[in-house]
Amino acid sequence: MDIDTIATTRYATKAYDPHRRIGAAQLKQLKTLLRYAPSSVNSQPWHFVIAASDEARKKIATATTGPYSGNEAKVLNASHVVVLCRRAELDDAHLQRVLAQEEADGRFPGPEARAAQIKGRGFYVDLHRNTLHDTQEWMEKQVYLALGTLLLGAATLAIDATPIEGFDRETVDKALALNERELRSVVLVALGYRSDKDLNAELPKSRLLEDEVFTFL
Amino acid sequence: MDIDTIATTRYATKAYDPHRRIGAAQLKQLKTLLRYAPSSVNSQPWHFVIAASDEARKKIATATTGPYSGNEAKVLNASHVVVLCRRAELDDAHLQRVLAQEEADGRFPGPEARAAQIKGRGFYVDLHRNTLHDTQEWMEKQVYLALGTLLLGAATLAIDATPIEGFDRETVDKALALNERELRSVVLVALGYRSDKDLNAELPKSRLLEDEVFTFL
Repeated sequence: MDIDTIATTRYATKAYDPHRRIGAAQLKQLKTLLRYAPSSVNSQPWHFVIAASDEARKKIATATTGPYSGNEAKVLNASHVVVLCRRAELDDAHLQRVLAQEEADGRFPGPEARAAQIKGRGFYVDLHRNTLHDTQEWMEKQVYLALGTLLLGAATLAIDATPIEGFDRETVDKALALNERELRSVVLVALGYRSDKDLNAELPKSRLLEDEVFTFL
Repeated sequence: MDIDTIATTRYATKAYDPHRRIGAAQLKQLKTLLRYAPSSVNSQPWHFVIAASDEARKKIATATTGPYSGNEAKVLNASHVVVLCRRAELDDAHLQRVLAQEEADGRFPGPEARAAQIKGRGFYVDLHRNTLHDTQEWMEKQVYLALGTLLLGAATLAIDATPIEGFDRETVDKALALNERELRSVVLVALGYRSDKDLNAELPKSRLLEDEVFTFL
């Protein structure tokens, strides 16, 4: 199927078949999509908690109550729920780990390349830390980059997905002890296979018209 | 090619072949990827300026000087540069246009469905406007969702791409008169075909190891 057909037929699944599970081979592909998602200056300021067990999804569902209760069944019935997290802080220790991994992976043909990477990444980290004072927002944007990658990628694998902003972040952070690991939940994605009760599957997609969203120069 | 192979072989192109242009059919597919990108409550708080002409790319390149000069040649030599913008404000007139389009597209089988959509979207808009006070950051996150969609989608079409945060936003906003249209530039994407001088094409990709980015529950 062409990518534009995939883009126009994927949709936010509203009801999951609780009996269908994502297989190991496809789960591996989904992990690759997340792990290889692009991020500014390769900062990878993220962590992905993948809840597969009933118990784990029930823990996450403690955050889909009250105004978010419409999302509870998605979390409980999906095959997997990914909690996309950012780091609490963009600390130097993390940046050192990224640099060490780049070195181990062979990104630096010589010391000049390594120095250039330190300088280039340092410029942007400094900009967000000390000028814009928005490192947390910057990290969350990168998480959304991974989110976009995951949603389109899942669709190419014929896996249904639902991005979920509607949950209580603090409740998830506590339920999964994310605070203790210097992580913060940003957004959830339910993954699995639609139920035949998913009315959204039958509705046409809607988007603003081309003239409203594009300017050509 | 499998989507995970695409995800692990796409990369941020550093040098473009100035003579190769994206064809009309593929440009249409790229537009579809952007226009159909998911966004929270279908808010579509964005606009995409697509610079194809030399003149338009030169205007954008006025924002890739000084600390951002490393991005100038990408902007000038790429086939197309997309300026992904958010709306200046998430105003009611925009939300009304989205609702009217959803109605025209057949999203509402009856008045209850239309009322439920107004209520559901209103809850999240109100949350960001009046409780979190972060509508601009919320909109920018949606733009990054479109960014992730575009980058992976382009890779499936064998189109090279470079996400570019390194540019002066205010300069682009002025050069393209975005302020007058109640738009703000968020991020650029250069699109086209790599030059044989792109050293990044030969380097291995680097990512943190699985154990560092995943937790299974």
